[in-house]
Amino acid sequence: MDERKLSKLLTEVQNGQRPVAEAVEILKSLPAEEMGFACLDHHRQLRTGRPEAIYGENKSGEQILAIVGSMLERGATVLATRVAEDKAALVCRTFPAVNHHPTARMLTANPLAADTDRVRGEILVVCAGTSDLPVAEEALLTARSLGQPVSMVADVGVAGVHRLLRRHDALRRASCLIVVAGMEGALPSVVGGLVERPVIAVPTSVGYGTGFGGIAALLGMLNSCAPGVAVVNIDNGFGAGCMAAAINRL
Amino acid sequence: MDERKLSKLLTEVQNGQRPVAEAVEILKSLPAEEMGFACLDHHRQLRTGRPEAIYGENKSGEQILAIVGSMLERGATVLATRVAEDKAALVCRTFPAVNHHPTARMLTANPLAADTDRVRGEILVVCAGTSDLPVAEEALLTARSLGQPVSMVADVGVAGVHRLLRRHDALRRASCLIVVAGMEGALPSVVGGLVERPVIAVPTSVGYGTGFGGIAALLGMLNSCAPGVAVVNIDNGFGAGCMAAAINRL
Amino acid sequence: MDERKLSKLLTEVQNGQRPVAEAVEILKSLPAEEMGFACLDHHRQLRTGRPEAIYGENKSGEQILAIVGSMLERGATVLATRVAEDKAALVCRTFPAVNHHPTARMLTANPLAADTDRVRGEILVVCAGTSDLPVAEEALLTARSLGQPVSMVADVGVAGVHRLLRRHDALRRASCLIVVAGMEGALPSVVGGLVERPVIAVPTSVGYGTGFGGIAALLGMLNSCAPGVAVVNIDNGFGAGCMAAAINRL
Amino acid sequence: MDERKLSKLLTEVQNGQRPVAEAVEILKSLPAEEMGFACLDHHRQLRTGRPEAIYGENKSGEQILAIVGSMLERGATVLATRVAEDKAALVCRTFPAVNHHPTARMLTANPLAADTDRVRGEILVVCAGTSDLPVAEEALLTARSLGQPVSMVADVGVAGVHRLLRRHDALRRASCLIVVAGMEGALPSVVGGLVERPVIAVPTSVGYGTGFGGIAALLGMLNSCAPGVAVVNIDNGFGAGCMAAAINRL
Amino acid sequence: MDERKLSKLLTEVQNGQRPVAEAVEILKSLPAEEMGFACLDHHRQLRTGRPEAIYGENKSGEQILAIVGSMLERGATVLATRVAEDKAALVCRTFPAVNHHPTARMLTANPLAADTDRVRGEILVVCAGTSDLPVAEEALLTARSLGQPVSMVADVGVAGVHRLLRRHDALRRASCLIVVAGMEGALPSVVGGLVERPVIAVPTSVGYGTGFGGIAALLGMLNSCAPGVAVVNIDNGFGAGCMAAAINRL
Amino acid sequence: MDERKLSKLLTEVQNGQRPVAEAVEILKSLPAEEMGFACLDHHRQLRTGRPEAIYGENKSGEQILAIVGSMLERGATVLATRVAEDKAALVCRTFPAVNHHPTARMLTANPLAADTDRVRGEILVVCAGTSDLPVAEEALLTARSLGQPVSMVADVGVAGVHRLLRRHDALRRASCLIVVAGMEGALPSVVGGLVERPVIAVPTSVGYGTGFGGIAALLGMLNSCAPGVAVVNIDNGFGAGCMAAAINRL
Amino acid sequence: MDERKLSKLLTEVQNGQRPVAEAVEILKSLPAEEMGFACLDHHRQLRTGRPEAIYGENKSGEQILAIVGSMLERGATVLATRVAEDKAALVCRTFPAVNHHPTARMLTANPLAADTDRVRGEILVVCAGTSDLPVAEEALLTARSLGQPVSMVADVGVAGVHRLLRRHDALRRASCLIVVAGMEGALPSVVGGLVERPVIAVPTSVGYGTGFGGIAALLGMLNSCAPGVAVVNIDNGFGAGCMAAAINRL
Amino acid sequence: MDERKLSKLLTEVQNGQRPVAEAVEILKSLPAEEMGFACLDHHRQLRTGRPEAIYGENKSGEQILAIVGSMLERGATVLATRVAEDKAALVCRTFPAVNHHPTARMLTANPLAADTDRVRGEILVVCAGTSDLPVAEEALLTARSLGQPVSMVADVGVAGVHRLLRRHDALRRASCLIVVAGMEGALPSVVGGLVERPVIAVPTSVGYGTGFGGIAALLGMLNSCAPGVAVVNIDNGFGAGCMAAAINRL
Repeated sequence: MDERKLSKLLTEVQNGQRPVAEAVEILKSLPAEEMGFACLDHHRQLRTGRPEAIYGENKSGEQILAIVGSMLERGATVLATRVAEDKAALVCRTFPAVNHHPTARMLTANPLAADTDRVRGEILVVCAGTSDLPVAEEALLTARSLGQPVSMVADVGVAGVHRLLRRHDALRRASCLIVVAGMEGALPSVVGGLVERPVIAVPTSVGYGTGFGGIAALLGMLNSCAPGVAVVNIDNGFGAGCMAAAINRL
Repeated sequence: MDERKLSKLLTEVQNGQRPVAEAVEILKSLPAEEMGFACLDHHRQLRTGRPEAIYGENKSGEQILAIVGSMLERGATVLATRVAEDKAALVCRTFPAVNHHPTARMLTANPLAADTDRVRGEILVVCAGTSDLPVAEEALLTARSLGQPVSMVADVGVAGVHRLLRRHDALRRASCLIVVAGMEGALPSVVGGLVERPVIAVPTSVGYGTGFGGIAALLGMLNSCAPGVAVVNIDNGFGAGCMAAAINRL
Repeated sequence: MDERKLSKLLTEVQNGQRPVAEAVEILKSLPAEEMGFACLDHHRQLRTGRPEAIYGENKSGEQILAIVGSMLERGATVLATRVAEDKAALVCRTFPAVNHHPTARMLTANPLAADTDRVRGEILVVCAGTSDLPVAEEALLTARSLGQPVSMVADVGVAGVHRLLRRHDALRRASCLIVVAGMEGALPSVVGGLVERPVIAVPTSVGYGTGFGGIAALLGMLNSCAPGVAVVNIDNGFGAGCMAAAINRL
Repeated sequence: MDERKLSKLLTEVQNGQRPVAEAVEILKSLPAEEMGFACLDHHRQLRTGRPEAIYGENKSGEQILAIVGSMLERGATVLATRVAEDKAALVCRTFPAVNHHPTARMLTANPLAADTDRVRGEILVVCAGTSDLPVAEEALLTARSLGQPVSMVADVGVAGVHRLLRRHDALRRASCLIVVAGMEGALPSVVGGLVERPVIAVPTSVGYGTGFGGIAALLGMLNSCAPGVAVVNIDNGFGAGCMAAAINRL
Repeated sequence: MDERKLSKLLTEVQNGQRPVAEAVEILKSLPAEEMGFACLDHHRQLRTGRPEAIYGENKSGEQILAIVGSMLERGATVLATRVAEDKAALVCRTFPAVNHHPTARMLTANPLAADTDRVRGEILVVCAGTSDLPVAEEALLTARSLGQPVSMVADVGVAGVHRLLRRHDALRRASCLIVVAGMEGALPSVVGGLVERPVIAVPTSVGYGTGFGGIAALLGMLNSCAPGVAVVNIDNGFGAGCMAAAINRL
Repeated sequence: MDERKLSKLLTEVQNGQRPVAEAVEILKSLPAEEMGFACLDHHRQLRTGRPEAIYGENKSGEQILAIVGSMLERGATVLATRVAEDKAALVCRTFPAVNHHPTARMLTANPLAADTDRVRGEILVVCAGTSDLPVAEEALLTARSLGQPVSMVADVGVAGVHRLLRRHDALRRASCLIVVAGMEGALPSVVGGLVERPVIAVPTSVGYGTGFGGIAALLGMLNSCAPGVAVVNIDNGFGAGCMAAAINRL
Repeated sequence: MDERKLSKLLTEVQNGQRPVAEAVEILKSLPAEEMGFACLDHHRQLRTGRPEAIYGENKSGEQILAIVGSMLERGATVLATRVAEDKAALVCRTFPAVNHHPTARMLTANPLAADTDRVRGEILVVCAGTSDLPVAEEALLTARSLGQPVSMVADVGVAGVHRLLRRHDALRRASCLIVVAGMEGALPSVVGGLVERPVIAVPTSVGYGTGFGGIAALLGMLNSCAPGVAVVNIDNGFGAGCMAAAINRL
Repeated sequence: MDERKLSKLLTEVQNGQRPVAEAVEILKSLPAEEMGFACLDHHRQLRTGRPEAIYGENKSGEQILAIVGSMLERGATVLATRVAEDKAALVCRTFPAVNHHPTARMLTANPLAADTDRVRGEILVVCAGTSDLPVAEEALLTARSLGQPVSMVADVGVAGVHRLLRRHDALRRASCLIVVAGMEGALPSVVGGLVERPVIAVPTSVGYGTGFGGIAALLGMLNSCAPGVAVVNIDNGFGAGCMAAAINRL
């Protein structure tokens, strides 16, 4: 129920078209309804601002297929993460309009149109090593699906800091940076020392032994001595993409 | 805003006493208002059902004094936990009506009257060792402040299981049990195997080395092989008292 | 040995039918015997109050089949948890009376009859996300097998708090709530702030990265700032169902 | 060395005012110098964009005094965090222009002037409980010292979600939100579900037992089911303030 | 109730001196009574076999004084661990018969007489470094108070394995070894490879950084590749002494 | 080099048959040689006192087959742990004299003869639940292979403490107890409170969620409030059997 | 850009052959260029000093094949670690010049020629148990590929310290030692006490239960009481080989 | 027993001055004696190669005074770490020849003379931040006491990577590098990517929150993507100095 509908209801009461008791009944449910309304409004926002993401890990191919189908029917932006090869194939066979991104393990369709008037600039995804690419691409595709201009710089780990410095200009031009790294997770610290813009650090589970599936990288990033760095969950490229979009959207 | 006020508002609209636009404005703010109202109602519930607890750890003596003073003024039940000796002395000097419980490190005043018609039975606090007494008493005093009948059985650790078995009758008579233990935290498992009633397990930070400040006890309780056991935070006698009151209240 | 048998023994001594020395021998072993007796009595209680649960994870299909068979023979309530698809099929083929609940991975038979005179009200299971459903259903089916009235509200995570608020009435009506959530495990805190009744929080292993297989959710629940919340082990829907039944039973 | 100086040097070579060998010497050190230049430039940026922060924890009062004195001399923005009462008193006695913020344990002087043309809007600090205020104020004062408009909403924990909802408008108006919470750290999830703007989550070490000095809150925030949330180190109000300034600055 | 009393009761019943109903009442309470009896018997055992240990950490000087006084009155073996300097002084001033062991932070009195007929041989405490001595002495004094012959070999850490090998004979002669070590905790592995007798490993909290207050040593000992090694809690010299006494006692 | 050879060498020097310089050379290398000799002696001890155990987890069936073959050839006691089904089958097909114990996942042959004159009494393995049986049997078979009399009591978990108490006599008769439990690991505490003999606690990885693969049980055992309890690694039935044999052997 | 090119550029400016503005443009990009140059130089170093290692864990057989092919084409040293059986077979089928080391799971080709003038001596790999061999061989083959003389001593765990002592001479002769051990990880401490040369400790994930996949060994090594020991990541034989080469290279 | 004494003994046997049986007795105890000899020899090595370090943390001022006194008497190199202010003052008052280094909290005397013929080059200590200086100086002073040439570069953290790059020449000239850093511990990765020489990484406990007292830095260093890096315990400057000396010594 939006303001227009509320005016209409009250006018009906004013006109005697609707008895007071009936309006009371309708409005009594309004806290929830209104919440629902807020919620719908919020959902609408979400539809325009953020894709309705499908977390594919624990869902069967059939379940994903059904959800995607229903989303396509109402023209929604489709953004599914962590979709295994075979489940992706199933969806794409049925809905050829859906794009499969094997590295990122994602499915996308109906991305939001990029509106350069409504963004601060270009988001840059900085990826430490080739093993971190799946997470970096998840971040990139999420931001792109949300209508954000976004590009990537890859293979610029801290053990060869010159490779990173050679990209100094690209780093500085970005309006917001997503820095993806596993192992010791030191890249966001170095990048954060080179730029003025907000840095979203994404630890990945790449590594072994005391990498502890990304905990070493996570701790490295949380303890970064560079200010202007904030962190998302391990391997959470999707969350980083959403955060970057929220920052870049005007 | 309750149903009566809503009817009145709508009747005013119907009667032309209040323009539609004005009613729209009032009703638009209703979700928050209603929430605020719910909130007040909820707070009233809290005042009758649960004490407004003051967590004394991070507060200065002056801050506690001010809060207690304001609560006494409106006749509220006072229940302050983790109050250091000197802060407690400060409060009691100013407000002689406030009781100080040094072992539990608590201050109480205006406990809710025990209403035996509104409770299931008597809550029993079972305490493993003498070092666990501060937490056990915090649980007992919290429940008592909430108008619950409650008693305690102490020094019945699992390494002398006969001492516990001798209290079998008391254990079975209780309507709800709070079992407080540190070190290996095995007591709730043994108690849970002897009674049919709900057992609230409270791990304490008593122990050393691999006791890890209560983590060993916590894990012992979470992994209890006895069903009908649920756990609260380490040293959280207050939380256990609240849970027991919620269970025992009809 | 019950009171009747004890009287008989003493009467035999009184009558000279049994020498004192012989009675001493019998009674000397009484602590254990009596314990056994208590134990039997306790077991009986267990049979009426709690199902003899079979933990299916480490058992072969044949072992489960044998236990279920023996339980059905004596008319016991059957409640098996964590039963894999193929083991469940094996049992159901042999005993068609056994119900298989694939989502909850449970087998049930002969549930206790619900006796509304002996319960406080209806238990409500609140489930955060669809991935938490297996644990939520385990809780629901456990409570139901124990003769408890129980219903469920699903997909009401904290990131869309309005969906939860819309169910405020249902939440308040429940006599006891089981709140099941993974990831950050914040739902019990929000629910605990809305109701007066005891809340049993169940962390699930749903999530990734720093979710640490349910530890993040567990810690979130143990540190809940809402009083009246207690927690069970990760994914322990069965334990939550038993605790709720113990609370709801009069 | 900036572009202007470089032109001058080359012109001197062109004019024969400076021999080639001498210019080679100067330029040979340029990678470092240039780096230094970048660094100076970067430092200048820092001076305009970020305060030169002094981390007071491990420094003596005398050390802080000396650094602050040298900063005041060159008119720099002073921003010192984690300064104990007595060290702060020492500094303020000598330099009356320095402001002491006891709750935040900070010293500030010469904040950057707020330039509303260069910011996106107003940053909002949302603080869960009164014990979280020191961290929340550190974030607020950091952002303010960096020339950002910033305000605060306090005492809106998730256990009384209505208090938060009543501030829905304020939440939505903010261009960027810093959400500070200890214990279970659930507040950023709820806030993140209500707004479209980027949320910087700050876990605090408030709590006890399994709060593990802020780890529970940190994990809760990293596992937030609301997108658009990123996290900084435990108690790192300074880092959150820097990140918010980086986001809000145009 | 012991056998003699039981016979007497039954004889009274036989003689008609005591009605059956009355005997039933008495015997019905027997499980507890008998347990109490077992418990007393068990306690007697404890008095002969194990000292009634006082854990001094959380007790006030006055509390320790009271307990020691009551124990001395009934001639019990006194064994108090973790007694701070000032508390120990208080006790010794009042009861000059009590011995204070400052390194071990223990108080002892009335040790059990060593009965060489009832032991397997001599217990040997092996101590890695001088910093581990407090724990090693706690183990030694505990065993000695329990009537065990015991001696010590000190400063034989693994980084100078020759020092240990020079004591090979002493190691082999011992009937049971208590090996105390902090840091990497490797000593029990090396000792366990040199002797045939049971080795009780005691990790100490000596070390820093990743020693984690004894966890590194504990893990080292639990993962010992030498068979015949079992471990007690960090710094638990008392527990090791009890275990060694239980092993050495015939 | 043994005493006889040494005498011979010295006699040769005395007789002038061997020059001093040559003898010096031979004796200079003696520390290692002697060590090797000690080592052989030690090995002999090991052969009589402890089986040469084969840890089967990381070995191929062919490797196990080869080692077992070589051991059988020289008549050694064979004791292989953690041998998978198919590897065991391979070995037994080739060497029918080898026994396969599927529950314990062990292979044994040529156990040491039990010599009742050289043992203190009978070892008792106490097993909490049926899921703990593999570890309990590994302990039992290890002790038996080492020539120890050993028996088992199973399914006596703490949640039904009466079942344990009924076995009180068996517990007290044992010369040494191995107590095997998973989940909360409370059984050794209860057993340790009932007996005077040494208790070796074996945590198992049975459980889920916060059981953390045996860590909860391990911590429960390390923090046991019953003295006379020491602990081995998670699932380390072999180590417990060796420790028990070392204790029971005279 | 080296000094010669820089002189040339400046002379061109001096001669008026190149306008100042153009020289400014060239020199402005110098920091990165210079860095890139440094980087190339650095890369050359890497090619002569260290192999370009391929981490095979997350790469497909095809990817490894492509990289190896390109390296062979330019005659580079090939060193691939963690290559699964089938991927190795694929590579070797195509490039017969590539050696497969199944235990170490490595592929090598074109090792650097050993130049005894440029090394300090021979590196010695000391391996605790047979299960640690894969990691030990990875270290050995890495050092050998880097042109280092290297040998191995195996099966010298601390539980039989005599076996190690018998190799005392070999240990002392080495110019640098790599000590590989799992379980309690005590071997580097013992070795470090016997030699004067640097010891690189490599924890392996061999073990179970509280071995925690190598953490126990890692902590044991980090807490070594022997000086002259430094540690690499769990199972990181490659890193140890590189470190040893860096130490041994003159 | 050294070679000379052994010759003497054998000559006595040859001369008939000492009966064979007596010589056998003496030589039988030789393994230990010889070990003791080896040990003395080893100790001598230690005296020439490594200082006899005193770990001052757990020792009283009097104990340190006594040890230092005894060392000075025999002209030994004194190297005491973690000596509190007041203990250091006590020692220096008595022995003016002892130097106190307050930042490093060390006492030194009689450093080994630097012998440039016996070293590879100069060790370089690289220190990330001023708070890391105590650990960096402990490393520097340890190496210097061991006769090593050593210098330091300070305040070159990764968040301002240009400061580090400006020191590139110094980094490359060093024969071995000790890199000291807290917080995210990324500096060794960056340094390791710039040099060919061995890098010893020292994590410090500098930081807060998820720095976990140095664990974040430790993990960052263990997971370094740069080869040629090995790690010592948190805050272990002494160990790093010993390792560097072992590497640098020829």
